Amino acid sequence: MASRTPSPTAARAARNPAPDRAGAAAGERPRRRLSVDERREQLIAVALELFSVRPPEEVSIDDIAAAAGASRPLVYHYFPGKQAIYEESLRRAGRELAGRFEEPPEGPLSERLYRVMGRYLDFVQSHGPGFAALLRGGSVAASAGTSAVIDEVRRAAHDQILSHLAIPSPSPGLRLTVRAWIANAEITSLEWLAERSVPLEELQLHLVQEFVAALTLTAAREPALAAELAAFFADERPDGPTGRLVRDLAGLFAVPGITEAVTALATAPSPSSDGPSPQATD
Amino acid sequence: MASRTPSPTAARAARNPAPDRAGAAAGERPRRRLSVDERREQLIAVALELFSVRPPEEVSIDDIAAAAGASRPLVYHYFPGKQAIYEESLRRAGRELAGRFEEPPEGPLSERLYRVMGRYLDFVQSHGPGFAALLRGGSVAASAGTSAVIDEVRRAAHDQILSHLAIPSPSPGLRLTVRAWIANAEITSLEWLAERSVPLEELQLHLVQEFVAALTLTAAREPALAAELAAFFADERPDGPTGRLVRDLAGLFAVPGITEAVTALATAPSPSSDGPSPQATD
Repeated sequence: MASRTPSPTAARAARNPAPDRAGAAAGERPRRRLSVDERREQLIAVALELFSVRPPEEVSIDDIAAAAGASRPLVYHYFPGKQAIYEESLRRAGRELAGRFEEPPEGPLSERLYRVMGRYLDFVQSHGPGFAALLRGGSVAASAGTSAVIDEVRRAAHDQILSHLAIPSPSPGLRLTVRAWIANAEITSLEWLAERSVPLEELQLHLVQEFVAALTLTAAREPALAAELAAFFADERPDGPTGRLVRDLAGLFAVPGITEAVTALATAPSPSSDGPSPQATD
Repeated sequence: MASRTPSPTAARAARNPAPDRAGAAAGERPRRRLSVDERREQLIAVALELFSVRPPEEVSIDDIAAAAGASRPLVYHYFPGKQAIYEESLRRAGRELAGRFEEPPEGPLSERLYRVMGRYLDFVQSHGPGFAALLRGGSVAASAGTSAVIDEVRRAAHDQILSHLAIPSPSPGLRLTVRAWIANAEITSLEWLAERSVPLEELQLHLVQEFVAALTLTAAREPALAAELAAFFADERPDGPTGRLVRDLAGLFAVPGITEAVTALATAPSPSSDGPSPQATD
């Protein structure tokens, strides 16, 4: 079960630095206010908090030491360098994010996804600059290690969604739909972080509705999915994301011209070619 | 106007290396078989070809020198190191790719986009491993410079699509739809490169249809776009990507259960809350 609130570890650790600067600076083991494991965890938590609010190139070992109330040599006692702390704190963040995708398989699917997206967007909001730096790539700290963390989180999201769809052998097309929608969620979150032009709740609703649309399009191409789609719609509720989408689309199709044009396309005599007309229009 | 065929420069340059190894190895200027500019261009073309078929970490300065029929010192005479050649060849590739997005504003929109996607997917196919290494990130050669090239290509795609939509002041929501669809095209191309599980023409058609669906969803949320959407549909042809999508969806909605379930959602009494039902189902 996912925790529904962000883990307070990082914040707690940053507020309660252990005062062992002197001992560490002299090259000794840190005073036993924190055990070795605890100290390591504290450094990771402090680093994660710093990397969440600033891109990695703007966080130094000195910043991490200062936020942890530790000395530079102490930090180097635990980690060979900044990259190692960065990657370790990223792995923790990735694990926490992946945990937020977990959702009991109960209730209409779009409402489950809506709850998951709420937790995902909370994470995006609270780890904004670090999340952006990580996904935008091109950071000096990008590496095969950071890439592996991103891939791991994407795979967790993909697997969770497929498990909720409960389709025994998902087709390559359906898997691709899920992966493309995850990319959509990432890019949409990044844009939102940069501009914050709409309330987060709107984004949450739109992302879920885009998933419903993508699923419908996939079923339109793959007749084997039609029965699953029928079961999906039958389970949805009028006041959920799908119900609201259906009514928005119904409103759009009531606009003069749209239904007529679409009906003309739907009822045209079946064309003989099996591809779009190839002739150039220029 | 975009060239419709890949530039043959790289292939030509790789097949006709200038035999100036001896002169360069002795530290002299290369023999004047190629001018300085020509030699630089040749090195970039050869490097681009290598970086297209292998990830950057698997291409060495020696590989570039050998493919160009040049010496290692000659390559260093023109470029400070591999990263500089990589970034320059990437800039060229980015410029070529951006050129492929250019399309005359004539004919139904989905058919224009279909032609653009054909050229884009040709590029993906012919630059596969390099394209994948670049977009997957986490390469040792990823940098702010390579990131800037990717951003530039995405911006060119975004601007071209908006210019074809011909909507005077695109809303933030519409811009986001375009950007998310570009991310979809990228991830779909990457998946295709890894598995090649469907014919490229199918991908080309599906991506265009997904754009049409995304545009429709955006208009469902933004009533100001409804008139533009009506004009878009009125311009489409039955045998184009949009016409085929409409018929596929009509076929899907003829499956028992789907129309009934969707109609029930559309005609339910308008719920009083303006958000999805918040109660947990567990």
